[in-house]
Formats: sequence, structure tokens, C-alpha cells
Amino acid sequence: MKHFITTQEWDKTELDAILDSATRLKADPIQHHLLKGKSIALLFFNPSLRTRTSFELGADQLGAHAVVLEPGKGAWGISFEDGAIMDGSEEEHVKEAAGVLSRYCDLIAIRAFPRFVNWAEDRQDTVIRQFARYSSVPVINMETITHPCQELAHILALKEHVGGDLVGKRYLLTWTWHPKPLNTAVANSAAMIATRFGMNVTLLCPNEQYHLDDRYLDAAKSNADETGGSFDITYDIEQAYDGAEIVYTKSWGALPYFGRWEDEAPMRQHLQHFIVDQPKMNRTDNAVFSHCLPVRRNVKVTDDVLDSPRCIALDEAENRLHVQKALMAHLLNASA
Amino acid sequence: MKHFITTQEWDKTELDAILDSATRLKADPIQHHLLKGKSIALLFFNPSLRTRTSFELGADQLGAHAVVLEPGKGAWGISFEDGAIMDGSEEEHVKEAAGVLSRYCDLIAIRAFPRFVNWAEDRQDTVIRQFARYSSVPVINMETITHPCQELAHILALKEHVGGDLVGKRYLLTWTWHPKPLNTAVANSAAMIATRFGMNVTLLCPNEQYHLDDRYLDAAKSNADETGGSFDITYDIEQAYDGAEIVYTKSWGALPYFGRWEDEAPMRQHLQHFIVDQPKMNRTDNAVFSHCLPVRRNVKVTDDVLDSPRCIALDEAENRLHVQKALMAHLLNASA
Amino acid sequence: MKHFITTQEWDKTELDAILDSATRLKADPIQHHLLKGKSIALLFFNPSLRTRTSFELGADQLGAHAVVLEPGKGAWGISFEDGAIMDGSEEEHVKEAAGVLSRYCDLIAIRAFPRFVNWAEDRQDTVIRQFARYSSVPVINMETITHPCQELAHILALKEHVGGDLVGKRYLLTWTWHPKPLNTAVANSAAMIATRFGMNVTLLCPNEQYHLDDRYLDAAKSNADETGGSFDITYDIEQAYDGAEIVYTKSWGALPYFGRWEDEAPMRQHLQHFIVDQPKMNRTDNAVFSHCLPVRRNVKVTDDVLDSPRCIALDEAENRLHVQKALMAHLLNASA
Repeated sequence: MKHFITTQEWDKTELDAILDSATRLKADPIQHHLLKGKSIALLFFNPSLRTRTSFELGADQLGAHAVVLEPGKGAWGISFEDGAIMDGSEEEHVKEAAGVLSRYCDLIAIRAFPRFVNWAEDRQDTVIRQFARYSSVPVINMETITHPCQELAHILALKEHVGGDLVGKRYLLTWTWHPKPLNTAVANSAAMIATRFGMNVTLLCPNEQYHLDDRYLDAAKSNADETGGSFDITYDIEQAYDGAEIVYTKSWGALPYFGRWEDEAPMRQHLQHFIVDQPKMNRTDNAVFSHCLPVRRNVKVTDDVLDSPRCIALDEAENRLHVQKALMAHLLNASA
Repeated sequence: MKHFITTQEWDKTELDAILDSATRLKADPIQHHLLKGKSIALLFFNPSLRTRTSFELGADQLGAHAVVLEPGKGAWGISFEDGAIMDGSEEEHVKEAAGVLSRYCDLIAIRAFPRFVNWAEDRQDTVIRQFARYSSVPVINMETITHPCQELAHILALKEHVGGDLVGKRYLLTWTWHPKPLNTAVANSAAMIATRFGMNVTLLCPNEQYHLDDRYLDAAKSNADETGGSFDITYDIEQAYDGAEIVYTKSWGALPYFGRWEDEAPMRQHLQHFIVDQPKMNRTDNAVFSHCLPVRRNVKVTDDVLDSPRCIALDEAENRLHVQKALMAHLLNASA
Repeated sequence: MKHFITTQEWDKTELDAILDSATRLKADPIQHHLLKGKSIALLFFNPSLRTRTSFELGADQLGAHAVVLEPGKGAWGISFEDGAIMDGSEEEHVKEAAGVLSRYCDLIAIRAFPRFVNWAEDRQDTVIRQFARYSSVPVINMETITHPCQELAHILALKEHVGGDLVGKRYLLTWTWHPKPLNTAVANSAAMIATRFGMNVTLLCPNEQYHLDDRYLDAAKSNADETGGSFDITYDIEQAYDGAEIVYTKSWGALPYFGRWEDEAPMRQHLQHFIVDQPKMNRTDNAVFSHCLPVRRNVKVTDDVLDSPRCIALDEAENRLHVQKALMAHLLNASA
């Protein structure tokens, strides 16, 4: 039994197999026999539109049923600490929550964003790791401190729009402005998967404070070493965009200021020029552009970039459906 | 491709076809082959019991799957303004929300009540109109400033209880008291559909302040002219009920006081006698009575009227299931 | 037509038939033909993880569809008083809510915990009794002031782990500590079902203040008289555990202090030693242990008891799925 928590823990050949299967399912989406009578629990500790819709419909298209649970809202609050004396607000321990859901369902998927109080704690990814520990069925990451389903959808969209072999492509991952500090998950994921597929990856961010956690920078470097690609960090906007073939953007909070937005805010207010706009895109080699969505228009990215034919964000979003169906089938040993 | 936003934008022959198909589906409700593998997104910006249940089960009975989304609660908040600089609380633009849901689903249904701040804004029906604009699949109105699905269910119940041809029937639409200012949607819809089906329609309301928006009054008059029916407004309760064959009631807020309930309230407190009660019903020609539900008992309508055999509100509510199934099939070109 | 509100209102032979059918469904869970095209409304006035998941998946495994409704949240608030003048916050009366859901669905299931203000009111079980009164389809109790689905799951787990004939087994139902006053439902249910199956039942609680309502104590005594079992109350922890073959635990609020937690709290703080721990379990005859879940670890029960091989709480939780499927099929006259 295998959990899908980060792509780093999976072989490249397995990721390729899922992507191939996703392509087949995209061409022929209704396969009610494939997971007939199976079920998946979708646990959302945070809001969702794409993820919920794509998992729920994806399950249905394969003959399975998804149950949507929101712990702390419609369902009981959950404690994740081993040995806890549970006299606070949580009514249920992950041992029971994971144990019971494993009895009812064939898969458990979890969305649990960081709490933005203490990065040292959030980086342990406790919620999904504890679910995986106490679950007897495969656990799927629907975004915690990484977002591996988005990675697969992103790569599939790039394969479709840039061409089958992504090796050596000049890939820009750029920080962008946003009025609040956001999760680093998609940026961590983009750095890992782009290097995993052999691209020449540049991470553009305002300064050292915006570096991703070393765990992900190290993974990206190590991936690049293995695949013959590259991974570099720059603070120079023009140099970063020059000649890029793929531009991917995300905003995230500066880790040294984690949980102290009032301290990051003064630095952040001078960074609005990181917005992805057409003049920057004009420096690229006619790059395709994407974003994981939701995106704040004219704050993170301008209308003209989002509405241009080179924007593939909707294709990437659509691919969430296809790759997740392939993933569910793979985890349950059904050949799609 | 066609959206179902108001019945005024649809041919009468198409509405008749949907009603006929609803009658067939009512007799033989389980048709899993009809929309097998299809899906519908149900977006609720406001609460629902009947609408949600009837759409969700209706989809299931036709082999399709409904996904329930509540933007701003379980899902991201959505911005509807073109060109917006999204630095407020909304995380997602309707262009992306509609675009992504169009990739996942075959239909998108929307409930978005007025915000009761500014009628000039609310009357533009921005939420559903923007979804329709940016969606590549048909959009269905689950109540905004009109409630066309309720119209179809209402007409079907009248056909069943009053007789097949409604032309010339004396139809009373009466305002009733309620402790809060409510949406005019069902009243707008009733005025339009009753005249569309050739009835002699009287709108009873307390005074000029409670007139519906001219857009709907004009549509009702124009419908009456076309069908040979009539449309009149009166403030005289006794005259309005005398000889009516159908009584339909709804409470709504006075448009000139929109967003200023504290100014409407003093006028409203003298209007409790508009309640639909048995003495008023006794003036009618043994009229059938209906209401769209939910209804506050003994505030809008007395128990004896609601519990009488002439009350067809539950039949109308049940018909929501049947007409919506027919509508979904129609929009997806499946013959039901 | 029959409602499933308490097991006391059902014949033992019928309960046995449902348990047998649950065992068959557990061995062969996917039976899509059994309730094909049927539907069930799940109304949650309170949160749920197990109940919702097991009913939703159970329906799906039998070919039926469950609609989840949360009155007062996603759906309208409901008034339960006959003849009410509905000028408060409730928008809908149970007559209409039950009436409409009966038109749409084949079954209605309800979770409505006590409000913890006035036990004299809560003990009337108004919400579910009014739904049953105005519904034209069978109503199922998903926990109100009793929890009959849990009873069936509990008995099935005991049959599986203790042996087929439970008659004469020494069964301990013990109150346990918890930082808040909880519902007596599961304790009421355990007292009734354990005596119904002929066991020798001891109710252990701190003092007279923690006695269950006389309605349930009387039912337990009367059941014991009929089956040849016994029902006793004790305040002596050691005596209660000595030689027990089954230990079931639950915390509940003292009824004389209902709605006045600040008055119960001083008494309660001296009762933490009622926690179920290994030294107490060592006094038993190698008893199996269970709890209905959710359970606060190291507050109600220690880790070592919950993690021991004699703990069958997860089996009981799993059985919720099987017994509820059998119950739904039974109520709809489908032979499972």
C-alpha cells in the first residue's frame, strides 16, 4: 500500500504511468466499471472549488463515490498528537478518524493548509502524515505544504502545449504579489516537479527572505543533478523572464516572517511590481503561462496575460480531473 | 447553446415541451440512461432545501451527478466585475470559476439572491449573467431576481389541479405580510408566467410602493396582450379575491425602500391583514391556493388555508423535481 | 409504514432479522440492484463523521442516493410547534419540510441532539417525532435522545467478538468523565438494547444524580424481566468491573443539572477517576471494550485500553455501515 503525499517519494516511471493513464481517461472519461462500488473520503480542513469538484466527479466517472467531510464544521474536530490528553476542543483523535474512514472507504484524501503560526511545526505536515500513519487505505494529498495533484495536472498541460519531452525547457517559477501571505505548497511542488522532468528551472523571488524551505530547494537541486537539468535562484526580474519558454507563478509568504504578517507587510508593499504582466511576458520566448488557480486578477497577474491564448491555466485546472482519476485507479490497482 | 435564466427569453413552445416531458418523467422517474455520466454544478450563494434536494436527486435519477458548491463557505469567494483589481476579499474571478466548472460539468446552476443594498445593482442580475457570459455550458437559474424553475413547477401543478388549458383563468397574485423584506423573484416570475399562459391576472399589493419593477410589469402586460389574457394591479383586497380561481401569494420588500428596511418597517406594520386566511379564500370561486415554500405559517398564510385540500403547495414543490429533470435533459438535448 | 425511532418500539424478531441481513451485507457489500433509484434525506442538526459517511456510502452501495441537508446552515431553519405564529427566525415549518422531503425521498433520517436547556422538553424528542408525524415515508433516528443505529452496530460487534448468544453475559455500562455535559442518548440506548438481548447489565455511575431518565431505566428493567437477564445500578467502581465480560462506556450530563453546567461542574471535577483504564479492565473477565466514538483519549478512556486488542470500537463503528444498509432495505421491503 502506498500513499500519495509528495511526488518526491514516487518513482518517475510511476508518475509517467499515471500521466499516460490520465491522457487515456481524458479521451474516454466515463469508465463506470473501473472503480465500481469503491469510495473515497475527501477531508477538507480548508475551502476548495476545483479540488472538490474534480475529485467528486472523477470518482463518479469511474463508478466510485466520494464523501465530502469538513472536520470542525460538519464533522468533529480532530486531534493529531499521540498520547494527547484530549481535554481541549477536539472531540476525536486521528487514530479513530483514520481508523473508521479506512473501514468505510477505499481511499482518503486530505486538504490541510499550514496554520501560519509556526513554520517549524507546519513543515512537519502533521495532519496528512498522521492520517497516513493510522490509515489502512491509501492517503492522497489534496494540498498541504505541497500540492502533488496540481503538479501532475501542470505537467500534463505542459506536455500538451509545449510538447511531449519537457527536458531542457527553460522554466520560470516566479513569486508574485498578493495582499496576504499564502501557502508555499504550489511553489514547493513546482520546483520539485519541473526539475524532476529535466527542465532548466529558474526561481525568481524578491530577495533571500522569500526562498522556499531548504527541503524543497535541496530536492530541486538534487532532481536537476539527476536529470541533467538545472535549478537557479535569481532576484533579477528581467534576466529571469528573458528567453523563458514556460512561466508559472505563485505568491507565498516569506518563511522567516511566518506567523508575523505585520512584520512582513512593510517589506511586501514595495513588491507589487512582481505582478505578471504583458511587458514581462514579451521578454520570453513566446512562453506559455500558467497558474494553479484561484488567481486574483490584476493583483497577481494582469487580465491581458490571463486572457491571452498562451495562458493554459484552465487546461491545467481541467487536467486535475484526469490526473486524479488516473491516480485513484493506480492506487487501487485498476488499470485505466 | 442556451441558458435558462428567465422564461421570457424562451419560446412558449419550448416551455410546453419541457412541461410535457416533466409529466412523462413524473410517471416514470428513474431514467439512468438519459444523462448517464453527465454532471451539474449547483452553486448556492444562499440556503436551500427544496432546490438542492430536487436538483441533486433529479440528476441522480437521470444517471447524472450533481456537485454542491457554496462559494464563500466551502469554496472560494468570487468576484464578478470585469477588469477588477482583486485586492479585496474575493480570491477568484467569475472568468475562472465559470471557465473551470465548464471544463468539469455539463451544466451550471446558480442561486444568487439580491444583496438588498441597491436595487439598481441587483436588478442587473450580475452573478448569473456573468456566469452565463463566461461559461461554455448551459447555465440554469435556481433563483436570482426571478425563479423560472418555480414557474414551471407552478404551472405544471395548475395544469394538474385546475385543468389542462389555463387560458382565461382568474389568477390572483397577492402580496402578503412577512417580518422581513424578501426577494421579489417569485412575484416577478408569477406575473410573467401566469400572463404567458393566457390567464387573467390580478396583482394585489398594499400600495404603489409595493409595485414590482417595471421590467416585470411591462413583460406581464406584453404577455397578456399577446395571449389575450389580462394584467391588472389593485390595492383592494376584497375585489381581488372575489371570484378568483387560483390564489398565489408571496411577500416582498418595497423596491423604493430597498436596503432601507428601517424606513419600510413603519409602513409594513400596518399591513398584517394581507395574510391569506380562510375568510379571504371564501370569497373566491373555490380557488386552489399555492405558495413557493418555505412559508411562515400564521404569518403569511393561516394553518387552515395551508392544511386545506385546495392547497397545492406540496404538489408544486414536488414538481420542482420533475420540471428540473425535464429542463436538464432539454438543455443537454436528451429526449425525455 | 414504520419509523425507526427507538428499538423499544420494534419486535425483537425484526431486530434479529436486520442483524442477520447486516451480516450478509457485510460479506457481500455491493448490491446496487437492491435500492436502485431510491433516495434518503439525511438531516443533520448536529455534526457527524461516522453517521454521515456510513449512511451516504451505504445508500450508494445499495444503488440509492443520499442527500445531506443541514437545516439552519445550508438549508432553512425549521419550526416544530403546531399552530405556531412563525414570526421568529425559523422560515419553514416541519409540516412542509417533512411533506416536501417525503415527496422527493423514500426515507428521511434525522440527527437532532438535545438542546441542553430543559430536559422536560428535550425528552419529548420533538424534532424526530414531529418529522415522523408529518412524513409519509419512514423516518430513521441518527441520534436524538436515543441512538438505535448505534445499538444495532454495537450488538452486531458483540455477537462477532463475544459469541452468537449474548444471553446471560455480564455487561457493564459505565459513566466516564468528560469536560462537558453530553447527551444521554447512547447510554439510554445501551441500557435498553443490552437488556433486550438478555444480558446481565450493570449501570455504573457516580451517584444518583447521574441516573438515566426513568423512561429508560424502566425499559431496561422491563426488558430484563422479559428476557431473564438483570439490570442493576451501582456506584462502586471495583464491584462493577469485577468479572465483567463486556465493558461499554459513555459520558453524560447529570439530568437534575440539565442546562446548568456551572452547577454540575463542581461535582464533576471530583469524578475524573471514572476514566476507563487498564487497572480497571484487569478486574474484568478479559472483557471486550467498546465506545460509540468520537472518544476523547486519556480523558474518557486511556490509550492502552483503546489500543488493546480487546477494544472493538472500530468494529462497532464499521458495523454502522452494515446495519444501516440492512435497516434501509428492511424499511423499504427489499430483502437483503
